[in-house]
Amino acid sequence: MVEINILGSGSSLPMFKRFSPSQIVKIEGKTILIDCGEGTQIQLQRFGFSILNIDYILISHLHGDHFFGLFGLLSSMLLLGRTKPLTIFANKNLIPILEIIFQDKLSGKYFPFDFLPLDFNNINKIIEEDKFMIYSFPLDHSVPTCGFMIQEKQRPRNIIKSFVELYHPSISDIKNIKQGADYFDKNSGKLFKNEEITTQPPQPFSYVYCSDTAYTLINYSEIQNPIYLFTEATFLQEKIDTAKSKKHMTASEAALLACHLNAQHLILGHFSSEYREIDLFKKEASQHFPFDKIILAYDGFKIKYDNYKKK
Amino acid sequence: MVEINILGSGSSLPMFKRFSPSQIVKIEGKTILIDCGEGTQIQLQRFGFSILNIDYILISHLHGDHFFGLFGLLSSMLLLGRTKPLTIFANKNLIPILEIIFQDKLSGKYFPFDFLPLDFNNINKIIEEDKFMIYSFPLDHSVPTCGFMIQEKQRPRNIIKSFVELYHPSISDIKNIKQGADYFDKNSGKLFKNEEITTQPPQPFSYVYCSDTAYTLINYSEIQNPIYLFTEATFLQEKIDTAKSKKHMTASEAALLACHLNAQHLILGHFSSEYREIDLFKKEASQHFPFDKIILAYDGFKIKYDNYKKK
Repeated sequence: MVEINILGSGSSLPMFKRFSPSQIVKIEGKTILIDCGEGTQIQLQRFGFSILNIDYILISHLHGDHFFGLFGLLSSMLLLGRTKPLTIFANKNLIPILEIIFQDKLSGKYFPFDFLPLDFNNINKIIEEDKFMIYSFPLDHSVPTCGFMIQEKQRPRNIIKSFVELYHPSISDIKNIKQGADYFDKNSGKLFKNEEITTQPPQPFSYVYCSDTAYTLINYSEIQNPIYLFTEATFLQEKIDTAKSKKHMTASEAALLACHLNAQHLILGHFSSEYREIDLFKKEASQHFPFDKIILAYDGFKIKYDNYKKK
Repeated sequence: MVEINILGSGSSLPMFKRFSPSQIVKIEGKTILIDCGEGTQIQLQRFGFSILNIDYILISHLHGDHFFGLFGLLSSMLLLGRTKPLTIFANKNLIPILEIIFQDKLSGKYFPFDFLPLDFNNINKIIEEDKFMIYSFPLDHSVPTCGFMIQEKQRPRNIIKSFVELYHPSISDIKNIKQGADYFDKNSGKLFKNEEITTQPPQPFSYVYCSDTAYTLINYSEIQNPIYLFTEATFLQEKIDTAKSKKHMTASEAALLACHLNAQHLILGHFSSEYREIDLFKKEASQHFPFDKIILAYDGFKIKYDNYKKK
């Protein structure tokens, strides 16, 4: 089971209904916070997440609306006596800011704390866990900015039950078959091609997060075919000039990016606070991307994705 | 007309219903923000205040829950193109933090910006306007902390209308009488004592704000007899040991302080997030202070005070 939770769907001027950007992704027992705008800890509490469970924090860039919530969140972790390790990925320029605010409190004195600087020039695998990995990749914004991709690893093939019942392969044979091997049955002298005795596992979960960026064709082979793409759509096409000058995207551009990446679902967020009604974002994006595959983010939005669920 | 608005009535662990401390006081055309916990700009927007109108920001001390909202608030002021001058009073140690976050953006390049360091050892008149003044005074907390008093100046005495109609004093005489002078009427040869021809103006508005502090007898003559006293009451008396060790007050101690200062009304806030129900704070405080003069703060609480209103 994987979860995407949007805590803040707004942009630089937070509002009571749309807080600044932050999201929680839960995958394989790990909790990842992506961006941490002001009020993130309030939203975590509001939507029922424990701040003590966060394993990783990924900060896309150092515009305040994406990291000003970090100070309160880390303070509360200290106050609550957190002991679980925490790793933050962000621009290295965040280090002196954290140092001046927290002095030595984040030196590992209280809980194991790692800070890992992001590379804003190349794609990098920044996290590799048993069952998933996370990439950072450069975006095109007015300050160094990364997007992130959370990619579940391909699961082994599913072996067909009736085959196992009839031919009783050994445990090590089963392991090989799941990895794609053919099977020779000595008793019957039959050779089974792998595709005869297994089925394709479901497509692994994959989630691409594009925070602030101008429209840019992301051409890394790893960042393709996501099941979900979240991307900013700060403006409508009527404000294309503003979008260009501020290095943000319109809803229309966001949809074109989704097509380019071959995303299955497109989640739009980071709406400028000047828009009170956002239905037009979906309408505009649907000129390029299927209407029923477009989701308009809101604070408290949750997707539970379980592609292994028994049907 | 004076207004006290509580934007955040919580303490160090903010919750969706109780944000971290911040208040807006409006007096004589000026808007004063006292403390600026995380989410202050969200609460300002929620409760209908413009962030562009704030004239003064007073930060009682540098615990995160009292100033982590400043970064987002100042960023939004810059983003919205504020031009109105702004003065911040705070611990001088806030300067390098603002510098590292804002670089030269607060140098007055965008809007006239003054930073004035607080003195944590003595009472000081930090602001003197035509019709009111603000004092800072030391409190007793685990880091240097100031309370604040907003004191409207004594208005001139009210001259009795029928006297003016009968004796026609000149404009300069009227001015003198309002300042307390007696009046000699040449025509009748009568000397009028000032108290015969004027009435006492209403008591000027005064508001004492005690943020985080251990129970301490505040003995400055200026900080006496406030119409409203806001003070922290982080714990109930059952947690007196915790209160003492963390240099906070219980509801009972807050009430004793209100008696000591001879306050007319007591507003309690800064409740620890461990209390979901706070009725007991009022009950406990009422052992020392009149029950019907105790107010439990909440986010969005507003007092409009107009002692000059024609009745």
